Amino acid sequence: MNAPAAATHQLESDLEIAKELFETIAERTSDVQGVSRPAYSKIETETLAFLKSFAEAAGLAVWEDAGCNANFALQADKMADRFVVVGSHVDSVPFGGNFDGLAGVVAGLLCLLRAKRDRVQFRKPVHVLALRGEESAWFGPCYIGSKALTGSLTPSELAARHSGDDRELAEHMIDTGIDMDKVRAGLPLVDLSRIEAYLELHIEQGPLLIGRDLPVATVSGIRGNIRHRQVVCIGEAGHSGAVPRAYRKDPVLAMADLFVRLDESWQTILNKGDDLVLTSGIVSTDPEKHAISRIPDSVSFSLDIRSQSAKTLDEMHQLLAAEMRQVEKDRGVKFKLDTEMRVEPARCDQEMVSGLLSAMDRAGEEPFVMPSGGGHDAAVFASAGVPSAMIFVRNANGSHNPQEAMDLSDFIAATNVMYEYLMRDS
Amino acid sequence: MNAPAAATHQLESDLEIAKELFETIAERTSDVQGVSRPAYSKIETETLAFLKSFAEAAGLAVWEDAGCNANFALQADKMADRFVVVGSHVDSVPFGGNFDGLAGVVAGLLCLLRAKRDRVQFRKPVHVLALRGEESAWFGPCYIGSKALTGSLTPSELAARHSGDDRELAEHMIDTGIDMDKVRAGLPLVDLSRIEAYLELHIEQGPLLIGRDLPVATVSGIRGNIRHRQVVCIGEAGHSGAVPRAYRKDPVLAMADLFVRLDESWQTILNKGDDLVLTSGIVSTDPEKHAISRIPDSVSFSLDIRSQSAKTLDEMHQLLAAEMRQVEKDRGVKFKLDTEMRVEPARCDQEMVSGLLSAMDRAGEEPFVMPSGGGHDAAVFASAGVPSAMIFVRNANGSHNPQEAMDLSDFIAATNVMYEYLMRDS
Repeated sequence: MNAPAAATHQLESDLEIAKELFETIAERTSDVQGVSRPAYSKIETETLAFLKSFAEAAGLAVWEDAGCNANFALQADKMADRFVVVGSHVDSVPFGGNFDGLAGVVAGLLCLLRAKRDRVQFRKPVHVLALRGEESAWFGPCYIGSKALTGSLTPSELAARHSGDDRELAEHMIDTGIDMDKVRAGLPLVDLSRIEAYLELHIEQGPLLIGRDLPVATVSGIRGNIRHRQVVCIGEAGHSGAVPRAYRKDPVLAMADLFVRLDESWQTILNKGDDLVLTSGIVSTDPEKHAISRIPDSVSFSLDIRSQSAKTLDEMHQLLAAEMRQVEKDRGVKFKLDTEMRVEPARCDQEMVSGLLSAMDRAGEEPFVMPSGGGHDAAVFASAGVPSAMIFVRNANGSHNPQEAMDLSDFIAATNVMYEYLMRDS
Repeated sequence: MNAPAAATHQLESDLEIAKELFETIAERTSDVQGVSRPAYSKIETETLAFLKSFAEAAGLAVWEDAGCNANFALQADKMADRFVVVGSHVDSVPFGGNFDGLAGVVAGLLCLLRAKRDRVQFRKPVHVLALRGEESAWFGPCYIGSKALTGSLTPSELAARHSGDDRELAEHMIDTGIDMDKVRAGLPLVDLSRIEAYLELHIEQGPLLIGRDLPVATVSGIRGNIRHRQVVCIGEAGHSGAVPRAYRKDPVLAMADLFVRLDESWQTILNKGDDLVLTSGIVSTDPEKHAISRIPDSVSFSLDIRSQSAKTLDEMHQLLAAEMRQVEKDRGVKFKLDTEMRVEPARCDQEMVSGLLSAMDRAGEEPFVMPSGGGHDAAVFASAGVPSAMIFVRNANGSHNPQEAMDLSDFIAATNVMYEYLMRDS
């Protein structure tokens, strides 16, 4: 990969710009550990404002859509009839990594800057979209920004409450400045028919590219999920020393029993060759009541079940219900589930996937395709009927944690693939 | 049990006094649910102050000991060389019941009032002791008040931190007005050689007396315990969707695995005919970091293991270590245990037990002996070498919860047994 001197100079400059953007935003949104950029928060708004001022200074067209997301384009492309959207999100989980989401926005901006610098046109006009509210950590529902844009946010999602201040999502959106009439009516905030395709660059959130020693991948599809923000297991409180085993209805042991059963089923499903991951990320007895010497009356926990197969999701849905019934019977407890949140698995657009593989080849990268374990805004655009695809960048230590680590050289390699694709999408 | 008219009148009056005391204190210390009387708090001090003003008005001798506990006696008995202590505690767990602890203090006061009213003397002088800080819910260590009195509070217990404000126990004790020199030196705050015996009335915290349809029992001994306020299971954080099962070090599933193993061992130990109860009353992922879509890096939980047999406690101690090692090996996690708190099982004084059984017989109650599941201040006095014993009162719905329910007629029946014992202790 010997690039001519001028091109090498440009790549170095891209790397400098990326470094500067990533570092500045990390600094401004840092938390006790890593970064925290809550969905529909002041910090998220300030992050978008910083990107907008950077892009304006660089001579790009900058505007806000009706979902209060930031949009960027070459001046000539802003008013284009149809365009490709290069999108990603700027929010993060609490104490998260800096690259999850933000990398896709910076990659899009770099492509715009490079085209501007090279005085070339994209094959189709490109709009870069910096979305809000992708992470579920804040309200429960995920992909809020892209769902609002595509008119698919449900009333129950709008009524979801913030994990910190307990106020509804809709209130936070209003505070952000969003006119909620269309959102509540389930109407798209943008003209979806004008969107030619949706392309998203994202760090890989698992260990596969590290294992394969590859910097970039094209994504074949996105795992769907079934999620419960809060399942409550209700037992009976009592003195830890005075209630014999036979009289107990201990919700903590019942939850443990359920988890071990689900864990065993998970292994069985994998043995069949099916795809599945299962996580309980939040577990808690009631901090207002719990004590060492008290059998708790209840314990609550979250569930996140993901698969590339809708059939496997259905299977786990059935299995969860059956195991809960059995544990209820065995241990005298009761499980109460909140509304199930479900996102169907999404397939990436086949034409785009083969276009991206060609672009990888042209950019000097080994063409490699893999599924996405995490969900992404791309899935929302795909279900809204927009041909969608994704590029993954190698990343160590997973995401949703401050140890997340993407090499900037890998990021530039992936950005090169994106630029190649946008310049010649076949 | 036909009592002469005058005696019936007196019993009715005792019941009225008890009702008034219980209701007033419940009202003054009520919380969102039940009552909350934190150890070494202003609420605890106010509860003692209320009892003192009531006793003073009733003509009893009232004083505070060096542990800032309230003491009561007939005027003639205050300066006695040797005396029987009738003790119990006034603190409660958060959102607890009103009778756990308080019942024993009110019973003692009623005995003093009855002796005064009847112008009779106890066989041996009686001091009623209203203790602070018995419940472990606030700091971790239990029996703080009686340990301070008997000089057995350890430096690590004094450094234990309050679950609410995170300040050390010693600081809270200083705020209460206690001179800490002797406490820190491990010296008794009272002359233990002057205490003839320690007697404590307490609600039963389990369901046995309800099952047997008996209002009162004499206690044979008190379960010892091994406790960990916080065990941390450390795994590895990651994205809930993107990390395949084989790459995971999920601390929540590891904790569930451990609980199910311990639960099975518990059943095996019971099958052998040994005595054991096991509880994890506090379980929590880190509220600052946890999210639905994040494999947590750690989860913490408490452990409370109790048995009437020191040998069984040793056995569970070994077993816990072995099971943790196995789970660590199987799941790539690490368990970190805080300092183990251990209280040895305590046997009640055999002479006192037979004296109480005779008193039950004289009071018209069926003589019944049972072990205590919960720990009590009586165990601390017993290990300080003071002959100790307990009376249990029937109580529905267990203790440490607002549904705790003691019939006042059962309470009066138990108080009668105590009075009979104090009047003729053989």
